[in-house]
Amino acid sequence: REQPETLARTLASQLPKIEKFKALMTRRKPRLVVLAARGTSDNAAQFGRYLIEITTGIPVSLAAPSVHTVYGARMNYKEALVVALSQSGESTDTNQVLEQARKAGAVTVGITNESRSSLAGIAEHVFLVRAGREKSVAATKTYTGQLMVLYLLAYALGAKLRIAGLEGIADLAASALTLETEVAVLAERYRFMHHAVVVGRGLNYANSLEFALKMKETSYVIAEGFSSADFLHGPIAMVEPSFPAFLFAPSGAAWPSMQEMLMRLQGLKAETVAITDLRNPAAGNLASRVISIPARIPEIYSPIPYIIPAQLFAAALAMEKNLDPDRPRTLSKVTQNR
Amino acid sequence: REQPETLARTLASQLPKIEKFKALMTRRKPRLVVLAARGTSDNAAQFGRYLIEITTGIPVSLAAPSVHTVYGARMNYKEALVVALSQSGESTDTNQVLEQARKAGAVTVGITNESRSSLAGIAEHVFLVRAGREKSVAATKTYTGQLMVLYLLAYALGAKLRIAGLEGIADLAASALTLETEVAVLAERYRFMHHAVVVGRGLNYANSLEFALKMKETSYVIAEGFSSADFLHGPIAMVEPSFPAFLFAPSGAAWPSMQEMLMRLQGLKAETVAITDLRNPAAGNLASRVISIPARIPEIYSPIPYIIPAQLFAAALAMEKNLDPDRPRTLSKVTQNR
Repeated sequence: REQPETLARTLASQLPKIEKFKALMTRRKPRLVVLAARGTSDNAAQFGRYLIEITTGIPVSLAAPSVHTVYGARMNYKEALVVALSQSGESTDTNQVLEQARKAGAVTVGITNESRSSLAGIAEHVFLVRAGREKSVAATKTYTGQLMVLYLLAYALGAKLRIAGLEGIADLAASALTLETEVAVLAERYRFMHHAVVVGRGLNYANSLEFALKMKETSYVIAEGFSSADFLHGPIAMVEPSFPAFLFAPSGAAWPSMQEMLMRLQGLKAETVAITDLRNPAAGNLASRVISIPARIPEIYSPIPYIIPAQLFAAALAMEKNLDPDRPRTLSKVTQNR
Repeated sequence: REQPETLARTLASQLPKIEKFKALMTRRKPRLVVLAARGTSDNAAQFGRYLIEITTGIPVSLAAPSVHTVYGARMNYKEALVVALSQSGESTDTNQVLEQARKAGAVTVGITNESRSSLAGIAEHVFLVRAGREKSVAATKTYTGQLMVLYLLAYALGAKLRIAGLEGIADLAASALTLETEVAVLAERYRFMHHAVVVGRGLNYANSLEFALKMKETSYVIAEGFSSADFLHGPIAMVEPSFPAFLFAPSGAAWPSMQEMLMRLQGLKAETVAITDLRNPAAGNLASRVISIPARIPEIYSPIPYIIPAQLFAAALAMEKNLDPDRPRTLSKVTQNR
């Protein structure tokens, strides 16, 4: 529920630093962006990957940290911008990627919620998610905060994004939060759901991974996120009548393939839940159930507001299942990998 | 069962072309490799990503085709090597990525099983998987054939791989195929399995995605592939007693983290199946069930032989469930995406 405030604070506080960084990027012109992260931060990185490629044309690689930490490879990151994302800033393997990249002469950036973390010490440039302390194991406000910083990073790399548009995202997040009661009522229907798929495309593909992760972490639902294109390449064979599928369905460039996906799923008698907004009334006609954010949202600004009903759903579903969404079994807040 | 032959034929027939291509790569020195694919070919690309980064230090990006096809982005692929992988060579979106890359001045490569396909026409350099016609919808021999070509591609990019080592892979594949009866007996135990996870790390991470896809396609099991590091970041919360997990467990650099994973899963009373070989007897002591290839396999050559018992398992499991693994419902052999 703090997300509108968190997003506004993150944007306002980081913008001056980003403007300076933009000037540096204009001089350095990185030819490659490498994003290194794990878990929810890796889902944020996946969004960054689409956003940066779409808006700047600079190729992006999502780092495979084990290439460095397990196999000790020396990567040629000359002329690269290497970015590590970590809520806690204490993810050992992504920190190691960044250390090696810095030694190799790359420009390094850390995106974290913790200004005194190891990551903040290692990175040459640090951009802070100003989310306040995150008490829950399942990351929510730090995910959307990272998405906001990634918009700023794309802006620094030359994306034609209007700051006024980014400022409007906090209000869109507030609109999404008004759905809390409606989403909680809907979640009752899924009390006995044990598996699900989540489908998104393009800018909302990352959200499909993140929604699936939230259901796994908090409700122990066997949920997997897919792009609609990949889903048609094999996994669609799993779908039988009543198979539950959640879909991110904003208007815009990705809609035709999501529409096709919804029609395929309708033909297979799947149970579909579309997350959409007032700009795309067509989504409602094709899905079994609809969660519509009461706002008109251009696709480019949809990923932050669109994940919020998904977060609310995962929390409500956990409570329906008599689980505590803030304290999933087995997990701790900081995960260190060798 | 044709895989030993297919692998030997692919290697022998493509090597002369690869030696020429190696000379070109020595002059051109690509600073980035982009791999574009869907479905099983995308899993092969995932292997290529680890192999090329580990053995050459050249950064690799797995293309998100929708960046091009949905959003029409113009990527800066100058000094990049762009590679499309497709069994049929008729995947419209990856072909589009390659066309745009060629116009943008990138060196383009196509890896396909069909010498007269669209892909073979678009790519500047074509390397053929010589698998013969693949009749089954679920790709098997073309997957391992693509892996073989990716070894050759890494070799062309400067990887210190011995051709004699690659020649030995056909025999390792033959060893793996001797497990057919043993794997079929084991599959009976999983007759009523409805969900599963598959875990690998590093060079065998791609196999975990591919094994999960094979179970989804042929047995309609809700199966997801993970790297062990990502699995600890959230999804492990799903694991309860008897939760089925399949693990690729070769000896070598990735073993310590797979060992840790197996111990965590043992503590949670999960049902674990380890795929391993004679070089790593330790894996057998930590897993509920073991599939051990009767050969001594260095990790670098493990991905091809290791996927074979997984393919055999998926086929046997489908038959246990009275399904036809060659003709999954809903799917067709060539998937075209907009």
